[in-house]
Amino acid sequence: MKLTILGCYSATPRTLTHPTAQLLQIKKHFVLIDCGEGTQIQLRKHKLKFSRINHIFISHLHGDHFFGLPGLISTFRLLGREAPLHIYGPKGIKEAITLLLKLGDSWTNYPLIFRELESKKAESIFEDEAISVTTIPLDHRVYANGFLFREKPAPRTLNVNGVAKYDIDKSQFNNIKNGKDVVLEHGIIIQNEELTFDPPPTKSYAFCSDTAYNENMIVQISDVDVLYHESTFLESEAHLCKKTKHSTAKQAADIARQAKVGTLILGHYSTRYKSLLPFQEEAKQVFANVELADDGKYFEF
Amino acid sequence: MKLTILGCYSATPRTLTHPTAQLLQIKKHFVLIDCGEGTQIQLRKHKLKFSRINHIFISHLHGDHFFGLPGLISTFRLLGREAPLHIYGPKGIKEAITLLLKLGDSWTNYPLIFRELESKKAESIFEDEAISVTTIPLDHRVYANGFLFREKPAPRTLNVNGVAKYDIDKSQFNNIKNGKDVVLEHGIIIQNEELTFDPPPTKSYAFCSDTAYNENMIVQISDVDVLYHESTFLESEAHLCKKTKHSTAKQAADIARQAKVGTLILGHYSTRYKSLLPFQEEAKQVFANVELADDGKYFEF
Repeated sequence: MKLTILGCYSATPRTLTHPTAQLLQIKKHFVLIDCGEGTQIQLRKHKLKFSRINHIFISHLHGDHFFGLPGLISTFRLLGREAPLHIYGPKGIKEAITLLLKLGDSWTNYPLIFRELESKKAESIFEDEAISVTTIPLDHRVYANGFLFREKPAPRTLNVNGVAKYDIDKSQFNNIKNGKDVVLEHGIIIQNEELTFDPPPTKSYAFCSDTAYNENMIVQISDVDVLYHESTFLESEAHLCKKTKHSTAKQAADIARQAKVGTLILGHYSTRYKSLLPFQEEAKQVFANVELADDGKYFEF
Repeated sequence: MKLTILGCYSATPRTLTHPTAQLLQIKKHFVLIDCGEGTQIQLRKHKLKFSRINHIFISHLHGDHFFGLPGLISTFRLLGREAPLHIYGPKGIKEAITLLLKLGDSWTNYPLIFRELESKKAESIFEDEAISVTTIPLDHRVYANGFLFREKPAPRTLNVNGVAKYDIDKSQFNNIKNGKDVVLEHGIIIQNEELTFDPPPTKSYAFCSDTAYNENMIVQISDVDVLYHESTFLESEAHLCKKTKHSTAKQAADIARQAKVGTLILGHYSTRYKSLLPFQEEAKQVFANVELADDGKYFEF
């Protein structure tokens, strides 16, 4: 899994800081999470093959998470895209995009498929043989969801020495990789474990932005490998969290600690701060494994 | 008058080229013309005092002229703007902006005043003591207008030696600057021309993008000081103009020549071209005074 941070600053785009957008490469998928203004420029700048994006997940309809989407959809059209594009986001997103395309007489020549969200409970919104995606209800000023991405287990891998030892024919290999035992000529059963290795462990990623401190998410994200949790403020501005429905770095770490996640990535910083290091310092007082998101930075896990 | 090109490339924003937006400083006004995605970043990058923008003119509702507007409106809100913002653009622009603000529960705390355009004839859309703005109907795939900006004459300036010669009292100076003659004690009339100088000549600027070659605009823009006319293509791609309703550099120059404008500025280049110089070369075969727009370049006139 590779996560590229295209933008991780709150509020308005500036010369050097970009609003929220992330590209998640998970199994065969290129998934875009949020799409603030200028996201398509960031995708180009970091030379990411963005024509491979088939699924876009929008957390909420504040401009800094969403205003880059109409332009990206139009660019796909100009580039001659034919593959369907699936968009997941709060109810209303379809009306907004449709109106903008209508006003510009710029209907896409590829299928644009919306899945509008309005449930306040976690729900499965995408699943195929490789991954699953579930919403994580957030606590923000407007209806907002995080997203939980989970890889599905790959097939077991063949133990070449094991199958050679029993002289097993190639025609059986697919069954073996799918977990089946093998019955030899004389009725002897060879357990699958002798013939295969465990697949690589599956990974999981939870994206939680924007949200106030919200313990309700803990059960759902417990034990994820990586949690991106917003940290708009430092403790010195903790009093602003209640009204704005944002979190401090320490609150994000509190969630990470209780959910026993592997790594916490902080982001969605208020642009009032000159340095990001205090975010990491304050979070590390509560939880050890803290990384700082920054525009253009990527994480492999 | 100062014209700063924030973006002058067609279609999609890229790492180094930006879609259409221009800041026109005319008399006391900071006027934004079109607002492609990323315009607010360009305004910041070029250190323009964009909080002074009170009037935004949108030519048409294709994304590369319009998708930066919702973000700019939101940024004004976050910056605590109180002054009214006037937006002029095709019918539908109010519905689009209103829907986006509603979905984000992000109503502006300053007045947002729309003037929706739908006339296919030129019409006066703004006028105060300093300038006037008139639409220029364009020929594009969707309803589109250019804009003609004209300075109004400033008051005449006082001829200090003239008023001293006749020992005229200060209380008369405002009347004199407004063009009045002065009657001396013995009934002698002093002509205003003896007491004042002509004000500096007024300037005019016509913005015409996007449009096919359209002779209908010539009468209206005749003798303007500066014409910005789109030149999406070179002559080698002239066959694309009919379907796309764009112009070549030579066609833009043809309009400039017939309208006897002072200076022609070319822009809205297709990103297929590696160099801009051929645009200037092709236009100069028809019209002498040709400038090339480029992102970040400014013109004073």
